[in-house]
Amino acid sequence: MKAEILSCGTELLLGHITDTNATYLSQNLTTLGIDLYFVSQVGDNLGRIVETLQRAWQRADLIIMTGGLGPTEDDLAREAISTLLGETMQVDPQLEAELRKRFSHLGAQMPERNLKQASLIPSARALPNPVGSAPGWWVEKEDHIIIAMPGVPSEMYRMWEQEAVPRLSPYTDGMMFTRILRVAGLGESSVEEQLGALIHSNNPTLATYAKLDAVDVRITAKAETREKAELQVLEMEAQVRQILGQHIFGIDKDTLASVIGTLLQERRQTLGIMESLTGGLLSGMITDIPGSSRYFVGGLVTYSSELKAQMGVPQETLQQFGAVSEETARAMAHAVRQRLGTTYGLGITGVAGPDKQEDRPVGTVYIAIEGPQGTFASQRAGWTSSRSDNRRRASLAALDILRRFLAGSLTPES
Amino acid sequence: MKAEILSCGTELLLGHITDTNATYLSQNLTTLGIDLYFVSQVGDNLGRIVETLQRAWQRADLIIMTGGLGPTEDDLAREAISTLLGETMQVDPQLEAELRKRFSHLGAQMPERNLKQASLIPSARALPNPVGSAPGWWVEKEDHIIIAMPGVPSEMYRMWEQEAVPRLSPYTDGMMFTRILRVAGLGESSVEEQLGALIHSNNPTLATYAKLDAVDVRITAKAETREKAELQVLEMEAQVRQILGQHIFGIDKDTLASVIGTLLQERRQTLGIMESLTGGLLSGMITDIPGSSRYFVGGLVTYSSELKAQMGVPQETLQQFGAVSEETARAMAHAVRQRLGTTYGLGITGVAGPDKQEDRPVGTVYIAIEGPQGTFASQRAGWTSSRSDNRRRASLAALDILRRFLAGSLTPES
Repeated sequence: MKAEILSCGTELLLGHITDTNATYLSQNLTTLGIDLYFVSQVGDNLGRIVETLQRAWQRADLIIMTGGLGPTEDDLAREAISTLLGETMQVDPQLEAELRKRFSHLGAQMPERNLKQASLIPSARALPNPVGSAPGWWVEKEDHIIIAMPGVPSEMYRMWEQEAVPRLSPYTDGMMFTRILRVAGLGESSVEEQLGALIHSNNPTLATYAKLDAVDVRITAKAETREKAELQVLEMEAQVRQILGQHIFGIDKDTLASVIGTLLQERRQTLGIMESLTGGLLSGMITDIPGSSRYFVGGLVTYSSELKAQMGVPQETLQQFGAVSEETARAMAHAVRQRLGTTYGLGITGVAGPDKQEDRPVGTVYIAIEGPQGTFASQRAGWTSSRSDNRRRASLAALDILRRFLAGSLTPES
Repeated sequence: MKAEILSCGTELLLGHITDTNATYLSQNLTTLGIDLYFVSQVGDNLGRIVETLQRAWQRADLIIMTGGLGPTEDDLAREAISTLLGETMQVDPQLEAELRKRFSHLGAQMPERNLKQASLIPSARALPNPVGSAPGWWVEKEDHIIIAMPGVPSEMYRMWEQEAVPRLSPYTDGMMFTRILRVAGLGESSVEEQLGALIHSNNPTLATYAKLDAVDVRITAKAETREKAELQVLEMEAQVRQILGQHIFGIDKDTLASVIGTLLQERRQTLGIMESLTGGLLSGMITDIPGSSRYFVGGLVTYSSELKAQMGVPQETLQQFGAVSEETARAMAHAVRQRLGTTYGLGITGVAGPDKQEDRPVGTVYIAIEGPQGTFASQRAGWTSSRSDNRRRASLAALDILRRFLAGSLTPES
């Protein structure tokens, strides 16, 4: 099966946004064993979208479109498909009812222009979109499939995984199984270097991806049955785990925060945080996990030294060692654990930038964790990237240390 | 002048990398007033690159290629252009000498395969690349220009700015000016509806974009000089501001948090936050702004009722009205303002989901701000999206209310 991707949106051609949807879909097509030869970005212009669709129709069996499903006059994906196929759009009563319900549920009246989001052509079926107002289209005609999905990445990802991939399975030859191993504490090139010859294996294939929160090692196998493919993946996974060991913190959709949450919940333990350079970001990552209120009691974003002292960090520690010091991180961990009465207390302080602080360079980070088994403290230095990057990296470093501390692979001092 | 971008590289079609080169070039072409209608990504396949070039040749005056200039068999940009134009590649003695010098300078012998990087066709001139081994090509033939540049972003940026843009200046008519007006508290379709006929104006043009943190209205004008274009944009901006009024919170790179930061800093005022459903996200947004420690004293992520009470929310309030109530939000704002001694205190509580809480449905949010001028409280309800979305929307709603409270466009109660 040959696929072609068409991303619609003048904002792509003005450079306001980058077409990461195409990247996501490319990766997914590779996994499904579907060949992809062309990707195009076209503006919100009916003639040009139709022209590109016509060519894709000639050279591909599967056309995947993103964008152009909004309610405005600029949103032309449906109109372009209708033109390509010579079919007429009509409002589908059931889709209209669902759309109106969605708006009334939000306490809003539906603008009439949104009605076109409830339209179909005879060859199209709607792909549900519970997280947005635009359903997708699944079009089958003359041995071709067109999938039209919203441009908003979160809506598109969900629709692709839940609606498109299952409908595509009859068309892919052989079954695929994929597992992602999530890696913390190593850069992408060290992961590749350590994996050595494995990286060149053919089936299963291995590929590494640097994500914002981890390095992903994606293992994909293709076999006659899903079970066989899964078995091949599991054998390869065992080899990779032997090499990367504790650096692998989870699989597939796991995050550092979700893994920590599972550990704490299993043990009925609790956590409190005192953070400064991360400014709430670390608490925000932890509380992004549903049910986190069962183990996360609270976070104190002590952005001033006064507030650190008010929350229990000894004045002497702040004065003698400075707000950015290992001693202060330890005192923060201790204070928040005491004050909130949690099993674990985590303290993190450092310099996010752009300016240095107390003569500590940008990127300095001190992290301390206090628990029943003792205290562990760690220092990271030398990041010179942007303020946002430093804050994100510091939060992830804290989560990784916490995970390893909970898993018993870091030895506390006392 | 009409341009088309063609990015070459199988790694793009496998999803290993995202085509940020196209984003960079798109933005640059907009600024130069060059129209861009199509962008394509094609793998390292001679036939498919030539096919895409032929079509671009028919519909564009300027073709910009990136990638495919390396020394390997997979690098086919030069071969494709030669095929398109029916010209034969020959090694250029001067380029060869420079290339050999570059290698000997690096203490290495030049692999013979690199020789093709010193090749030209009669219609091509070399674009110097002091930061890499592959010179670019500047091709002029039959009223068309082809620019071929390396795929490595840093090499491409330099070559574009230093070599391509100056050579393009005779071909660009008019200068562009662009301003983005950032809008909060309205959805994209209401913004469009309110702008009415303006949205169809030709020069300046108006376009709306739904971003994660706001709706953007982008105004772009084209004129003989930059000054004239700027003037046209400012006139249009005045009209848009008349319509959208207080919903416009900033321009270009402004965020709600940066605008709040500027207001607080100008007035030498301070802020403290007590947040529950947003779990640190709100503090995280505020502290993402460099210099925020000058006005943000701290945040209390009171994820349990016990911690709310410990931080000063009266037990009676929690018991009588519940943790998710307007009264608790008010008490949170009051308590954090008292405890941290800040000019303003902000309290936010609600239900992020996926489960309801105290019989309040998912998406319920109460926000209260207390300041010298009194207290303002607000309730939002009915979001039914994901936990992450609810948390993000609640944080943005709180920032928007705070901004309007600071700007004096919300009337406090006392």
